Amino acid sequence: MASTKTTTTTDLTPEERYDLITSNLQEVLKPNIIKSVLAENRPLKVYWGTAPTGRPHCGYFVPMVKLAHFLRAGCEVTVLLADIHAFLDNLKAPLELVTHRAKYYELVIKSVLRAIGVPIEKLRFVLGSSYQQGAAYVMDLFRLSSIVTEHDAKKAGAEVVKQVASPLLSGLIYPLMQALDEEHLGVDAQFGGVDQRKIFTLAAENLPGIGFKERAHLMNPMVPGLAGGKMSASDPNSKIDLLDGEEVVRSKLRKSHCAPGEVEGNGVISFVEYVLFPIAELADEKGEGKFVVPRDEKWGGPVTYSSAAELKKDYKEDKLSPMDLKRGVEEALNKLLDPIRKDYEQDEEFKKVAELAYPAEVKVKKKKEKKIGTGYVPKDKKTTAEKVTDGVIKPQEAVEVAVGTSAKDAQDKLARTAE
Amino acid sequence: MASTKTTTTTDLTPEERYDLITSNLQEVLKPNIIKSVLAENRPLKVYWGTAPTGRPHCGYFVPMVKLAHFLRAGCEVTVLLADIHAFLDNLKAPLELVTHRAKYYELVIKSVLRAIGVPIEKLRFVLGSSYQQGAAYVMDLFRLSSIVTEHDAKKAGAEVVKQVASPLLSGLIYPLMQALDEEHLGVDAQFGGVDQRKIFTLAAENLPGIGFKERAHLMNPMVPGLAGGKMSASDPNSKIDLLDGEEVVRSKLRKSHCAPGEVEGNGVISFVEYVLFPIAELADEKGEGKFVVPRDEKWGGPVTYSSAAELKKDYKEDKLSPMDLKRGVEEALNKLLDPIRKDYEQDEEFKKVAELAYPAEVKVKKKKEKKIGTGYVPKDKKTTAEKVTDGVIKPQEAVEVAVGTSAKDAQDKLARTAE
Repeated sequence: MASTKTTTTTDLTPEERYDLITSNLQEVLKPNIIKSVLAENRPLKVYWGTAPTGRPHCGYFVPMVKLAHFLRAGCEVTVLLADIHAFLDNLKAPLELVTHRAKYYELVIKSVLRAIGVPIEKLRFVLGSSYQQGAAYVMDLFRLSSIVTEHDAKKAGAEVVKQVASPLLSGLIYPLMQALDEEHLGVDAQFGGVDQRKIFTLAAENLPGIGFKERAHLMNPMVPGLAGGKMSASDPNSKIDLLDGEEVVRSKLRKSHCAPGEVEGNGVISFVEYVLFPIAELADEKGEGKFVVPRDEKWGGPVTYSSAAELKKDYKEDKLSPMDLKRGVEEALNKLLDPIRKDYEQDEEFKKVAELAYPAEVKVKKKKEKKIGTGYVPKDKKTTAEKVTDGVIKPQEAVEVAVGTSAKDAQDKLARTAE
Repeated sequence: MASTKTTTTTDLTPEERYDLITSNLQEVLKPNIIKSVLAENRPLKVYWGTAPTGRPHCGYFVPMVKLAHFLRAGCEVTVLLADIHAFLDNLKAPLELVTHRAKYYELVIKSVLRAIGVPIEKLRFVLGSSYQQGAAYVMDLFRLSSIVTEHDAKKAGAEVVKQVASPLLSGLIYPLMQALDEEHLGVDAQFGGVDQRKIFTLAAENLPGIGFKERAHLMNPMVPGLAGGKMSASDPNSKIDLLDGEEVVRSKLRKSHCAPGEVEGNGVISFVEYVLFPIAELADEKGEGKFVVPRDEKWGGPVTYSSAAELKKDYKEDKLSPMDLKRGVEEALNKLLDPIRKDYEQDEEFKKVAELAYPAEVKVKKKKEKKIGTGYVPKDKKTTAEKVTDGVIKPQEAVEVAVGTSAKDAQDKLARTAE
């Protein structure tokens, strides 16, 4: 990472801002769009979209670090809480939870960014439903659909949209919406993981076709999760929740996969590189970061790294053991999570929203059908009783729950979140 | 056709209404939905959609006859003027004309139905843009797209959506909109040609999946055009315009394809069967129709048919010549068109709207680039000059014209038509 002096925002030259905005990224499309905004000395407007589905976990630190860079570089950052997507992506988040989850995401993201220590005055949250149902947006969606081929829409979503045997039409519409969001959120650039590349390209290629300008695109690399592989919100063992306690963090980290000497695909090392170092750099007056491994004296005593490259070299050469590395990460991560936990503990709204957004799973006991006399159990009722046995909604039912049974219903529920 | 007494609406029994509503149709899906509405003694609500693109021609009499049946049977008939479709179906109708064309279609349809002699109090016109950009509709569109597969959407449009090498995403969205229109127009049934069958089936199968009720579907056969084959608005020689003068009608009819003895696929005979007989039946107190052939005495003198079957039998057996058949159609058609022409002549608004909707093609003369001295012609300008040579907009340019360069622009123009 380029060394960037980041004491105050106004200190930075356009070049320094550009370096900070693009630091640690895998790819930037149309960097000149960004450079020319910075040269005009106006704040770059960037948006990042997230669908409020599962609980945000430590994997979210990776994009958060970039949002922190953007904010520190004076950007106006928009977080799109894509509630309509979450609502339609039905197996993940039934209708009645989406509103609460969007609020939870907002509270968590703000708390994380405060913990990193960046100013959040230029951070705004926008609910997808607040404009994606509007006439102007819809007309643009129709217009865009009349110049984008089925083939291109499908190709764009290939890496992001769930690939199933019978893909749904919504999967072809999402990439177009993500393109239009750039225009309707009024940004100069969109940020996302490199898995969004084809959607970004679709946006860049087609927005001009309906009279809108092409935007720049900023892409993070795909960072392996702390517990190995891409972190997934759906596997509770593969993630460390942002509100997990110290002991839980320690225990999960100890169990996480971290092969000795292996640097590639190592989620623990990636976390140091893409989260801990950048955050330490942001916190340091000179923009220099360090990472401390509290090693026992008998193994050589504590060691302090001042770059990810140094640490990776030592790890590769077996001069740093997985256990010691994990202890270092554990200390730094717990220090990072501490203010977030405090925010949660001290904020009754935060607690209430979390409960509503992620209610404890209710186990429904099988209700035995008892009939006096005939012993006849109506077929329908029997089915119902079986369905609720394990308290888990099965896919087909989930669809009905999620898409709702009336538009009015959906409208009302989504409208409430728009404030 | 079942003989139906149609003197006044209130005279009809539910059975007679059902017979009239379904007369001459090729297929009815879920007839019980219609029967139960009629049994309740409330007006059946039916919708027919048309995209205001080319000038309506005599082929429009075929669905108009059915609208006349619906109205005579006491139905509430909604004509959806699908302006958004017309606007997006870009090669046919550039943006600035759609508004005028929608108005023109409304004036023509009303005039045709008056000419047929049915009451039009229960006829309403709805512009697609008046509700298809609304939040409730859009949310329903999103919901529907999340339960309909790409594959099913594509299959549904196969017979209706223009089949091209690189199909556009809009072609997958249209069938879903046509399904949703049933709910948002609040109808009991949708009417259309049998080419809409797969879209109708998609609607019937999927509306319940998002909490709406299944509708009945009424399907006209595909009737060959007066000039042979399916009438097409894009070939000026294959159609008789609803405002063509007597002589033009005569001349076009004389030139039309009508093989002696051939009944199948014969557009002239089909016109008698699906337009002239039904209209004559509607006009007759006893619901009996007749068709007069003003034949010369030397060929057997005038002959009057009281059913299409009789006429087809004679034609098949060469007892009726193409020329005599055409003379009969010419007389009946001119009689039918007369009040429509009068409406037009006497109504300044009608004339003005027609001019705006279908302006005479402006031939742009090639402007030769003359440069003094250098002889240099800038490349861009040269291209422009070539483009306008024939005054015809080429496909690629037409796309830009049609989808517009700003959503605001499109919004404004469409909003004006919503009244």
